[in-house]
Amino acid sequence: MSTLTLRQVAIDTYKENVAYLHRDCKLYRSEGFQALNKIEIHKQDNGQPIIAVLNVVDDDSITAPGELGLCEQAFIQLGHKEGTAVRIAHARKPASLKAVRRKIAGDRLNFDDYLSIARDIVGNRYSKIEIAAFLVACSETGLERDEVLHLTNAMIDTGKRLDWGEPLVVDKHCIGGIPGNRTTMLIVPIVAAHGMLIPKTSSRAITSPAGTADTMEVLAEVELSPDKLHEIVRSQRACLAWGGTAGLAPVDDVLISVERPLSMDSPGQLVASILSKKVAAGATHLIIDIPIGTTAKIRSRNHALALRKLFEYVGDHLGLHLEVVLTDGRQPVGRGIGPVLEARDIMQVLENDPAAPLDLREKALQLAGRILEFDPDVRGGQGYAIARDILDSGRALAKMQAIIDAQGKNQAPSAVGHLYHEVLASRAGRVTAIDNMQLAHIARLAGAPMDKGAGVDLHRKLGDTVTAGDPLYSIYAEFPADFDFAREAAEQDSGYSIGGGKHDE
Amino acid sequence: MSTLTLRQVAIDTYKENVAYLHRDCKLYRSEGFQALNKIEIHKQDNGQPIIAVLNVVDDDSITAPGELGLCEQAFIQLGHKEGTAVRIAHARKPASLKAVRRKIAGDRLNFDDYLSIARDIVGNRYSKIEIAAFLVACSETGLERDEVLHLTNAMIDTGKRLDWGEPLVVDKHCIGGIPGNRTTMLIVPIVAAHGMLIPKTSSRAITSPAGTADTMEVLAEVELSPDKLHEIVRSQRACLAWGGTAGLAPVDDVLISVERPLSMDSPGQLVASILSKKVAAGATHLIIDIPIGTTAKIRSRNHALALRKLFEYVGDHLGLHLEVVLTDGRQPVGRGIGPVLEARDIMQVLENDPAAPLDLREKALQLAGRILEFDPDVRGGQGYAIARDILDSGRALAKMQAIIDAQGKNQAPSAVGHLYHEVLASRAGRVTAIDNMQLAHIARLAGAPMDKGAGVDLHRKLGDTVTAGDPLYSIYAEFPADFDFAREAAEQDSGYSIGGGKHDE
Repeated sequence: MSTLTLRQVAIDTYKENVAYLHRDCKLYRSEGFQALNKIEIHKQDNGQPIIAVLNVVDDDSITAPGELGLCEQAFIQLGHKEGTAVRIAHARKPASLKAVRRKIAGDRLNFDDYLSIARDIVGNRYSKIEIAAFLVACSETGLERDEVLHLTNAMIDTGKRLDWGEPLVVDKHCIGGIPGNRTTMLIVPIVAAHGMLIPKTSSRAITSPAGTADTMEVLAEVELSPDKLHEIVRSQRACLAWGGTAGLAPVDDVLISVERPLSMDSPGQLVASILSKKVAAGATHLIIDIPIGTTAKIRSRNHALALRKLFEYVGDHLGLHLEVVLTDGRQPVGRGIGPVLEARDIMQVLENDPAAPLDLREKALQLAGRILEFDPDVRGGQGYAIARDILDSGRALAKMQAIIDAQGKNQAPSAVGHLYHEVLASRAGRVTAIDNMQLAHIARLAGAPMDKGAGVDLHRKLGDTVTAGDPLYSIYAEFPADFDFAREAAEQDSGYSIGGGKHDE
Repeated sequence: MSTLTLRQVAIDTYKENVAYLHRDCKLYRSEGFQALNKIEIHKQDNGQPIIAVLNVVDDDSITAPGELGLCEQAFIQLGHKEGTAVRIAHARKPASLKAVRRKIAGDRLNFDDYLSIARDIVGNRYSKIEIAAFLVACSETGLERDEVLHLTNAMIDTGKRLDWGEPLVVDKHCIGGIPGNRTTMLIVPIVAAHGMLIPKTSSRAITSPAGTADTMEVLAEVELSPDKLHEIVRSQRACLAWGGTAGLAPVDDVLISVERPLSMDSPGQLVASILSKKVAAGATHLIIDIPIGTTAKIRSRNHALALRKLFEYVGDHLGLHLEVVLTDGRQPVGRGIGPVLEARDIMQVLENDPAAPLDLREKALQLAGRILEFDPDVRGGQGYAIARDILDSGRALAKMQAIIDAQGKNQAPSAVGHLYHEVLASRAGRVTAIDNMQLAHIARLAGAPMDKGAGVDLHRKLGDTVTAGDPLYSIYAEFPADFDFAREAAEQDSGYSIGGGKHDE
């Protein structure tokens, strides 16, 4: 165990602790440290040491011999000032890696195994490659449904848990993959106008052109302190906030940071990720929307049914009242794809604007109706009519405006991107397919969600007839480079299939 | 596609390309780059772009807005000067990741799949976590033996391949895990003295207290240029060099850089790793030593036999004449553990010193005998006697001295560490077990292989009788911190079991 002078290295390594030692540092040689080794950095109060992966530095101005550099997140985690004398040592392998190795070999793990893995991950004792190993071992058919339950419980138990002090706290989740599917921002005001408690926190887009948090941000502040959020929920029975900093199921955030670059998405991880967040957020009743379509995340009814069973099994054992709704995922919902364009669709629906996209309105009413029926006083089958009445009467709009005001109205909302291009039908016929993934891809290339006004606005949907030269959709962008990328992508593949007259091609 | 000014960031990230962009860099925001994203960096000649993982910097002195920082290995790989204007873009996922995903899902892959994976890995298009995903998917029972063959061929085809222009080029390999098992440095001079061609390159220790390259370095230069190495092999029929920079099966080096921190070691990867290196190095005939013991890498005869079959299957299909020898792995071989101590044992055997460890001599003669029988002129069963004659007559010593002189004699060889501690028997009895792993661990803690004189010197072996207080072994170290670690570890567990008189405990 040896002493070094602490120094912050202003590098953001994205949820992996990295430590920097100079190659000529005496400790580096004498202790046999090597790049990619993990080291323990001890706190002055002798609390749990933090763990970091070692990079070797050849530049004194980054980290000099005798200094220990820490990346930004590790520096914050250690919580000491620059210049503090810190002791480092070789890190022991986290004990739970033995369980990961058993999982790789094909064993079932029990709750204690998953809990020890979750604790080590939250404690930053896993490197990215160890997390990748765990995820791959769990992927595809690798997790029994009992294991998914254990993993979910372990993820809940290693984070904060909210308690709203009421017996009925509702939430909804969509499996994703359908651009424009922003029903949450309609369901929340409808349900809250009925008086149900729906403290909705959402993520920002990771691989999609917009998340609910990105879209809500066009209208109002979404990064709220825990105190502010609670105050809003108490007064409005609802919120539409970003959930990023809440510390709920923090293991999930770490796992996602590796799943995303790996493009991994196994059913077990998906269910554990969603349900751990919902239970930790205090939900008691949950609707899950699984859109099915050949270009959606879930491609067949059989896959959707298997996923539904897994949700039901884990939900039931968690004591969560959970219902899964299978919906039509063959094309984007609404017209806009991208934060500003999606916010426009939502406000049109809330304002009962005749131009509002009917499919978005209809889907939101269906889901809101199912949620309203969680209310013991609502008769089975009546939810939809109540939801429609709340929307048509303007009560949903009023509730939305109240939520926006409570969170803090965006005084300078972004406009739609100033660069504009129309993608035209190359032939006459009927729209027989719209590729969700290609349209999401084009909207992202155009700059969404980073540039709020960027995206795609659909003028034709499935079943519409077109003549050659009719506009299929518009592309909006802020920056010329993005604009060119998006146009090129649309030129190579518009994402639309047009069939010949009565019969499809 | 946008332009930045190139800058080297003097950080060694150990076989992973890392790029640094300032958080306020216009490109970072406008292009939607994110930490952990992979980016492509284009060469000025429009050759194959290099790929790097992005870290975000908040310190202008590391990387300023408008600059692109590259870690040392990425900077070298790009091959442009600081200040060059470089263009970057989002990296496309390497196409072969689709094959990795199929492997994760349980598919068999074919040769083309493995070749495309190997090419992308050699081209630095995989991140560490993608490599981890590939390794876990291949681990344990995950690879059919045909797949091991495909992977081996893919690893050979993506690197350099040596051709010695002779029909019989011999090599040997030991599966490892047995401290002190330094037979290579005896086999090479014996076999070369017989006139066979044995151009031996070895690795440095990764997880063990000494590799052959570390031990040979006590006596002679081991880092030789390809030209020098060829000249020595031509004149001496042999060499004992470090193989690190030869560019043979470079995929293997990348895979090992992830396997090591994961402590992964699947049979398929093991066989592919060893045989790809040997074939690429030009070997035509190969002896593989698999020591079996409860504290060795291979713990049972059944495991060893399964591994032998896999070696034979792949070797036969590669056209390699391969023989596997199962040996006794119940305890360390020889007395010394650590480079200086092991080199001492070897020289004692070569010099026919009466103090030389007999077990090391005997094992080397057995293996050398098997190799000599690859010579068509040697009658079956005569190899051992020929090897013994070469050793006893001093011809092996003379050959070793010639090799040392050709490579460059070490004029200032390290001495044994000046810190010294004897571990004593706590009771009388007979030595019934010696734990290979614990003794390797103690030797490493003492500083081996980094400090060449550090290590462990065994005074008692299996079956020896001891009285309480007899020295079991000595620990040598250079640095007090290491010395204390090693002594503490030996106090907690000496690694020796002593049974009561005639009957074991």
